[in-house]
Amino acid sequence: MEKEEFLRLLKEKSTRAEQIVLSYLPEKEGPQAKVYEAMGYSLAGGGKRLRPVLMRESFSLFSDREEWIHPFMAAIEMIHTYSLIHDDLPEMDNDDLRRGRATNHIVYGQAMALLAGDGLLNLAFETVADALQKRADDPAYVSRGIKAFGILSQKAGCEGMLGGQVADMLAEAKQEPCGEEELLFIHAHKTSALLQAPLMIGTLMGGATPEQVLSMERIGYRLGLAFQIRDDILDVTGSEEMLGKPIGSDEKNAKSTYVSLYGLQKAGEKVKQLSDLAREELSKLSKDTAFLEQLFSYLTERDY
Amino acid sequence: MEKEEFLRLLKEKSTRAEQIVLSYLPEKEGPQAKVYEAMGYSLAGGGKRLRPVLMRESFSLFSDREEWIHPFMAAIEMIHTYSLIHDDLPEMDNDDLRRGRATNHIVYGQAMALLAGDGLLNLAFETVADALQKRADDPAYVSRGIKAFGILSQKAGCEGMLGGQVADMLAEAKQEPCGEEELLFIHAHKTSALLQAPLMIGTLMGGATPEQVLSMERIGYRLGLAFQIRDDILDVTGSEEMLGKPIGSDEKNAKSTYVSLYGLQKAGEKVKQLSDLAREELSKLSKDTAFLEQLFSYLTERDY
Repeated sequence: MEKEEFLRLLKEKSTRAEQIVLSYLPEKEGPQAKVYEAMGYSLAGGGKRLRPVLMRESFSLFSDREEWIHPFMAAIEMIHTYSLIHDDLPEMDNDDLRRGRATNHIVYGQAMALLAGDGLLNLAFETVADALQKRADDPAYVSRGIKAFGILSQKAGCEGMLGGQVADMLAEAKQEPCGEEELLFIHAHKTSALLQAPLMIGTLMGGATPEQVLSMERIGYRLGLAFQIRDDILDVTGSEEMLGKPIGSDEKNAKSTYVSLYGLQKAGEKVKQLSDLAREELSKLSKDTAFLEQLFSYLTERDY
Repeated sequence: MEKEEFLRLLKEKSTRAEQIVLSYLPEKEGPQAKVYEAMGYSLAGGGKRLRPVLMRESFSLFSDREEWIHPFMAAIEMIHTYSLIHDDLPEMDNDDLRRGRATNHIVYGQAMALLAGDGLLNLAFETVADALQKRADDPAYVSRGIKAFGILSQKAGCEGMLGGQVADMLAEAKQEPCGEEELLFIHAHKTSALLQAPLMIGTLMGGATPEQVLSMERIGYRLGLAFQIRDDILDVTGSEEMLGKPIGSDEKNAKSTYVSLYGLQKAGEKVKQLSDLAREELSKLSKDTAFLEQLFSYLTERDY
C-alpha cells in the first residue's frame, strides 16, 4: 500500500474508532452530568485511537460481526484515558498540557479529575459487563467475552500497565540509572501491556485459537518495546517542531533509556529487530494482515 | 438472639470475612510488591467488614456452596477500600487518620496511594474475571456471575457510589444548604449503593429470583439511608469517646443533614421507619433472616 493511501486509511479508521468509543459514554442529566463531562473531555481528547484501532483490525482478521468488538474497543480506550488523567495529576507527573489541550485537572480541578479517572476505569468494566449481559444467550460470545474480560483486567492492573507505572515511579525515586532488566520490565508493563490487550482481545473475540492469541501477546510485547525505544531515540534525534514537545528531556532528567544504556545505533537496531519479529509473527497468521503490518512499521519508524 | 451472642457472632463473621477478602490479595515479589503492600495496608485496615458480611449472609440464605461467593466478597471490599483511599487524599477530604491508623498517602505518599486505589478497583474486577474463568464450565455460575458483575460495576460507578461522591463534592462546593431531594440522592448513591450491591449479589449468586434480588435492592436502599441518618444524629447527640471521632463536625461545616433539615425527632422517626421497612421486607423472603435482621437493627440503632 502506498504511504499516502495508508495514512488516509489510518485516519478513517481512527475517526471510526473514536465514534465507536464515544458512543459508550452515557449522556445524563443530574448530579453525575459533571463527572461524565470531565470523563468525556479526556475521552474525546484526540490521539490516533491506536488501541481501539488495533483491536478492531485484529478482530476483523477473524470475523465480520463488527459489533461484537465495539464494547471492548470502548473499554480499552477508557482504561488508557483514565491512566493518562491520573498520570497528569500533580502528585504524579504534574502536567498541564496533553496533546496541546489543558489536562483534566487544569480544567475540572484535581478532585474531579481524580473521580473522572476512577469513573473511566469503572465505566470500562461496566461496558464489558453490559455487553456480556446483552449477549448472555450466545455461548460463543459469553465464553470469549469472559476470557477477554480477564485479559483486559489483567493487562490494566498491577500485572500490567499499573505495575509498569509503579515500577517507573520507584525507578525515578531511586535517582540512579536502572539496568536493562528493570527498563524492560517498565516498558513491557507500562507500554506493551495496553498494546497486547487490544491485539489479544481482538483476535480472541474474533474466534482465534488460544495459540493465535498467545502469538498476539508476543507481538504486542515486541511492538510496545519497539515503540518505546523509538520514543527514546526521538527524544535525542527528533526535532521539537515535529514532535510537538521538547526534546532532550530524558537526558535532562537523567532518565535511563535504551539510548543511554546502549547508544543510538544499537537502539535503532533493536527497534528494527523487534519490529521485524512482530511483523514476521503476524504474517504467520496467514490472514490479510497488510494494514496491521504497515501500521507496525509506521509506529516504529515514525519521526514525530 | 441475645445481644451478647449476636455481637460474638458478628465478630466471628467479620473475622472470617476478613480472612476471605485478604486471601485474594496476590503475594508478589518484584517491582509490584510495593503497590500490593500499599493496597494490603488499607485492605487489612480493620472495620467490621460490613459489606462482605452482608454478602455472605444473604448468599447463605439461598445456598451453601460458600466458595461461590468468596471472590465477590473480596471484590466489594476492594472497591469500598479503594474509595476510602482516594477519599482521604489531599485533593479530596485530606484526612490523615482513618480508624485510628495513618491513611494510605500518609504512609506511602500521595502518588502511591493514588495507584494503590486504582490497583484495588482494578483488582476487584480481576478477581471477578478470574472467578468467571475458573467456573466457565458451570452455566449457573456464569449466568449469575455475569449479572453480579453488572450489579457490582454499576453500583460502584457513576450511577452508584462514585456518582454520590461527585454529588456530595458539588453540593459542598455550592456552600449553601441542599434540599431533601439532593440529600437523598447523595446518600442513596454514596452510602446505599455499596450496601445494595452485597445484598443483591449475595442473593443472586445464591439462586434467588429476580424479584427477590430487586427486593434486596430496596432493602439496601433503606438500610443505607437509615444508617446515614443515624450517622447524622450521632454527630449531634453522640459522645466523642464512643464515636472515636469529633462530634458536631456537620454543624461546624454547615453541612446539610437530615437533622439540620428536619430536626432530631423527625430524623429519629425516619431511621426507625426505614429500618422497620427494611426488616419487614427481609422477613418476606421466608428464609432464616434472624441474624441479618438483628444486624440491621444493630447498624441503625448504634450509639457509636
